[in-house]
Amino acid sequence: MKVGIIGASGYAGAELLRILYSHPGVSVAYVAAHTYAGWKVADLYPHLHVFEGISFEEFRAEEALSRADFHFVALPHGKSMEVVPALIEGGAKVVDLSADYRISDAVEYSRWYGLEHTSQHLLEEAVYGLPEINAEKIAGACLVANPGCYPTAVILALAPLAERGPAAIRNVIADAKSGVSGAGRGLSLTAHFAQAEGSVKPYAVGSHRHIPEMEEVLSAIAGSGIELTFAPHLVPMSRGILATCYVGLDPQEGLSEEEIRDIYLDYYRDKPFVVLLELGLFPETKAVCGSNYCHVGLGLDKRVSMVIAAAAVDNLVKGASGQAVQCMNIMQGWKEETGLEALGIFP
Amino acid sequence: MKVGIIGASGYAGAELLRILYSHPGVSVAYVAAHTYAGWKVADLYPHLHVFEGISFEEFRAEEALSRADFHFVALPHGKSMEVVPALIEGGAKVVDLSADYRISDAVEYSRWYGLEHTSQHLLEEAVYGLPEINAEKIAGACLVANPGCYPTAVILALAPLAERGPAAIRNVIADAKSGVSGAGRGLSLTAHFAQAEGSVKPYAVGSHRHIPEMEEVLSAIAGSGIELTFAPHLVPMSRGILATCYVGLDPQEGLSEEEIRDIYLDYYRDKPFVVLLELGLFPETKAVCGSNYCHVGLGLDKRVSMVIAAAAVDNLVKGASGQAVQCMNIMQGWKEETGLEALGIFP
Amino acid sequence: MKVGIIGASGYAGAELLRILYSHPGVSVAYVAAHTYAGWKVADLYPHLHVFEGISFEEFRAEEALSRADFHFVALPHGKSMEVVPALIEGGAKVVDLSADYRISDAVEYSRWYGLEHTSQHLLEEAVYGLPEINAEKIAGACLVANPGCYPTAVILALAPLAERGPAAIRNVIADAKSGVSGAGRGLSLTAHFAQAEGSVKPYAVGSHRHIPEMEEVLSAIAGSGIELTFAPHLVPMSRGILATCYVGLDPQEGLSEEEIRDIYLDYYRDKPFVVLLELGLFPETKAVCGSNYCHVGLGLDKRVSMVIAAAAVDNLVKGASGQAVQCMNIMQGWKEETGLEALGIFP
Amino acid sequence: MKVGIIGASGYAGAELLRILYSHPGVSVAYVAAHTYAGWKVADLYPHLHVFEGISFEEFRAEEALSRADFHFVALPHGKSMEVVPALIEGGAKVVDLSADYRISDAVEYSRWYGLEHTSQHLLEEAVYGLPEINAEKIAGACLVANPGCYPTAVILALAPLAERGPAAIRNVIADAKSGVSGAGRGLSLTAHFAQAEGSVKPYAVGSHRHIPEMEEVLSAIAGSGIELTFAPHLVPMSRGILATCYVGLDPQEGLSEEEIRDIYLDYYRDKPFVVLLELGLFPETKAVCGSNYCHVGLGLDKRVSMVIAAAAVDNLVKGASGQAVQCMNIMQGWKEETGLEALGIFP
Repeated sequence: MKVGIIGASGYAGAELLRILYSHPGVSVAYVAAHTYAGWKVADLYPHLHVFEGISFEEFRAEEALSRADFHFVALPHGKSMEVVPALIEGGAKVVDLSADYRISDAVEYSRWYGLEHTSQHLLEEAVYGLPEINAEKIAGACLVANPGCYPTAVILALAPLAERGPAAIRNVIADAKSGVSGAGRGLSLTAHFAQAEGSVKPYAVGSHRHIPEMEEVLSAIAGSGIELTFAPHLVPMSRGILATCYVGLDPQEGLSEEEIRDIYLDYYRDKPFVVLLELGLFPETKAVCGSNYCHVGLGLDKRVSMVIAAAAVDNLVKGASGQAVQCMNIMQGWKEETGLEALGIFP
Repeated sequence: MKVGIIGASGYAGAELLRILYSHPGVSVAYVAAHTYAGWKVADLYPHLHVFEGISFEEFRAEEALSRADFHFVALPHGKSMEVVPALIEGGAKVVDLSADYRISDAVEYSRWYGLEHTSQHLLEEAVYGLPEINAEKIAGACLVANPGCYPTAVILALAPLAERGPAAIRNVIADAKSGVSGAGRGLSLTAHFAQAEGSVKPYAVGSHRHIPEMEEVLSAIAGSGIELTFAPHLVPMSRGILATCYVGLDPQEGLSEEEIRDIYLDYYRDKPFVVLLELGLFPETKAVCGSNYCHVGLGLDKRVSMVIAAAAVDNLVKGASGQAVQCMNIMQGWKEETGLEALGIFP
Repeated sequence: MKVGIIGASGYAGAELLRILYSHPGVSVAYVAAHTYAGWKVADLYPHLHVFEGISFEEFRAEEALSRADFHFVALPHGKSMEVVPALIEGGAKVVDLSADYRISDAVEYSRWYGLEHTSQHLLEEAVYGLPEINAEKIAGACLVANPGCYPTAVILALAPLAERGPAAIRNVIADAKSGVSGAGRGLSLTAHFAQAEGSVKPYAVGSHRHIPEMEEVLSAIAGSGIELTFAPHLVPMSRGILATCYVGLDPQEGLSEEEIRDIYLDYYRDKPFVVLLELGLFPETKAVCGSNYCHVGLGLDKRVSMVIAAAAVDNLVKGASGQAVQCMNIMQGWKEETGLEALGIFP
Repeated sequence: MKVGIIGASGYAGAELLRILYSHPGVSVAYVAAHTYAGWKVADLYPHLHVFEGISFEEFRAEEALSRADFHFVALPHGKSMEVVPALIEGGAKVVDLSADYRISDAVEYSRWYGLEHTSQHLLEEAVYGLPEINAEKIAGACLVANPGCYPTAVILALAPLAERGPAAIRNVIADAKSGVSGAGRGLSLTAHFAQAEGSVKPYAVGSHRHIPEMEEVLSAIAGSGIELTFAPHLVPMSRGILATCYVGLDPQEGLSEEEIRDIYLDYYRDKPFVVLLELGLFPETKAVCGSNYCHVGLGLDKRVSMVIAAAAVDNLVKGASGQAVQCMNIMQGWKEETGLEALGIFP
């Protein structure tokens, strides 16, 4: 199958190129980027030297549709919805990596992103692309909204508890630690090496745009409204997200650590990319670096009846481009793991 | 004044040497270390080349007492209590950087550290060396138990709320991020560069030995028992601790963000080493690297009535050796800041 | 084909497991390690969770020979030669990743490694496993001595010039920068995160054990004795080697930058893993991280008639385990790239 | 003495503020910056919170002259020469940290910097501010051109050999490794954390603008023209420069390692900031982090008669702002070390 990548010059786009190069079922036939239109892929990204003849092009919908049947859109929010409708109308299947189709309510979208949604008719048909909770809908979708990196980690850490209903997932705090590539390839003092190296800091505490997405999905799983406190932190590493989630146990239930682990084991049975660690072990981001796996570790602080559930993903793979390919595999009826078998690069 | 350092070859000891070199009121007259006895200081630590003639010696109490009147003990827990009683009995003043005299209850000490306390008579006279909450007692003390690095950050983040009583500081979660030097100079896979670099991971969740110390001190401030969930994380940086603390607001009070900040401003008035950031700003560890400052930032997640209070310290300075010097200054009646004026090394 | 890994618990062993997992032609049937005998692979290396049922075993030659036909030996030098002869006598093919069979002269080996060579009869039959210069011999070999990480980078940077004879490669200086994993998984202060982070330092200047290997191979290519100055440096990154090589140009020749590049282009034509960058571009280690590629960049400092040739490899892949698999592919008559197509993980 | 800092918002400016805060002889009375005019110092740099009341101002010469008698100019090259003449004419003493007054020949300046020099009359009076080779002239100067960070390390590594004349310092190669702060606070992909982390790469090989400065100073010391090959590398650390220099020994002389070390010992006697390591030891950048020291290590590769001389400095201190303060101390007749006694921050 021929695929296109729109917005291919950013980190998510480059990661799609890297992953798809090893995918046996597809070939990359169209690569668009605005700022770098005309540049050779390999000149911008020496690690992609194998894409020798290929250059970034300025996006044109007809061209995209004539060259490929399946498109990944890796544009910033707001830009995506300028491109996706034409692709969908033109009959292509699309995985959109931006936030534009993740939130079902256009008003909520406007509140958090400060933009009017210009293709609200697609919100209903868009499917949230987290295969571990939504595989069936993804299989039948034409437009998949690929989850954000933080929501991927937080939701995978919490979904098994959320499924037990709102009482099982109260007072949730998600303290997340992200590598700097999470902020993208754009230039900022925050991403300047000399400022980020050797430092940890919180940012956008309680106000990060990934909050509504997490709450909507967890609420849907729980069957009732879930609110959480979300505090992202910048950590001096390139890749990786660790979400450490704290959940007050339902005092009525008094679950043991083993029972909690069994709930997770059940939930993630037959989910090839979620690895549940032994009790007492917690995940480290490096173990999933470059891979599509999500490692989950669990603990129970009995003294205060608090569950600690931590999930680690590579923000550019399971948190972005790998997940997008996983969704494509499901949409195409292929084996979910196709092209995504690579293990983490450690150490 | 002549001072001695017992256990001078570890990171806390080296940091004491670095700081005391610039202190106008003292000279280092005795430097003991077991493993490196006989080594020149500068051969182990090239950055301490100015201590040219000085070598580590095997500890002998009489020698220590004859050479210096004030001692810093930077030995591991368990080893400290083998040394401190002789120094105190010999008339020296002591700041002990280990955990041996931090917990007032010897039974509690044994439970967490797995050791019988062999100088329980000193527990009553030992003063917890966090000057921002305990300056008066420190001024009159002969034996000061210097706080752990995590407790320093967590207590400074929470003390102003704790002082309002137990209702104001409920369901506390402290998610802490530490640089690798916090684990000391000892060799372990955890501290191996190739394993720690590019990775974040939780460890000792709910079971870290600094928990009883935090709870005892915060309970004393609050006037009633406080329990908290503590999850330390290892972060790929050499120095620095960031403690992100989550506190459910007392629903009766409904404090605003500004009111919370005023509580902190009041509490830390005239505390030269605590810097309260503007509302909406959170601390970064790099801003305090190499300095004795603690930066504190505050936020209120109104949607869920949660206060987020984050504190950043350099674990080897305000979290260890700088704080020990600050205590010495107070014990000697000197200005608290003497020898500790250095600003953070940034970037 | 069933393969075994002897010494599988170190970084080179773990990297073999990671790479071979994706190799379509082999399955790992035997995994030996001494220190970790009895441990499950996944308990030591969470990123290798897919090797679920497999544990490290204590090495026994008969067992190894009965379970696999092809063995990778990733033991330290000195230990390897205790194991390899039995495997070869037992009819297995072997790629040895240690230094034990790299140097053809047993006396020279003893001088640099301080050990008597105990299987000198194999030195003649062992083939130096750098496929870009030795592919034909590797194809027919039963025992391949996999090159060291530094020699891989240095030789690939210099071979095209060396081939022009000794006059073309005079006064060679190789200033190499290595990530910390190059020192292996063993514990040392040098590899302690807090010591290595934020620091660069030279070590073993002019005395590193990889020197005789580089000089022997380059001399063989040049047809005459080559001596070089080699200064390795430790750099704060996990993976990667950059070898910056300085070669005084033969004044008789007066080659231009373009002519030099053409010499390299010719030499590396049809070598799939060597990527020659455009003139004026130099390689960065991150572009080859996790991949088997070697990026080479060239410059000519005309003012002083000095060629600068720099090569970047991932020390654990092209500098160790990936190269070992490349050799295996050639020994088995498979396509050289099999299982090694993964691109660099960037950023 | 009241001092001013022009161009105070960059890293060199911030470092001047940090250092001068602890200097007993001066107070910072004027702080100018264009881009951040109107910003409070502490809002841009939280580690400088002690400069509470102070804001950056737009530069005006009269204002500067009325407020301070001594000025540090930390502007980019080209901008400095727009500011310095007015300050000098106004009777102030100036240490200029840019390249504008380092190269004595205006034509050479234009060739390397691509700018016409607009205050050539000051080139003659400007003194190159490397105190270890130029202290006397600095003592009498009104305008000091503070050396670049690379030249500081390279010249200190080579000066003792250069002094022996051109035959003693032939075929010099300086392979330098710099932390990312060397590129300044400006935004670029090169300085983006995700691109720089985990990577080493050469840049500006043979064409870096610091070359003419090194060659001019070394030639002056040697008494004859010296040319060198200079290859700077970017290394994933914030601070620090290591210059590894290779010098072919004069075959007539056949100096031993001890004789070479004695030459260095003699040369650096009574130079408080140059620390010569024992034979066989090489410097690491972390040992000088945050300090004004330069550590120098030496080796002799007897096999090829090559001296390896390596120097480590903190590029922002001895390589910039600390050296500027050292020059000020000398210009004012104060003790050279005043305000610069801080030791390296290690680990």
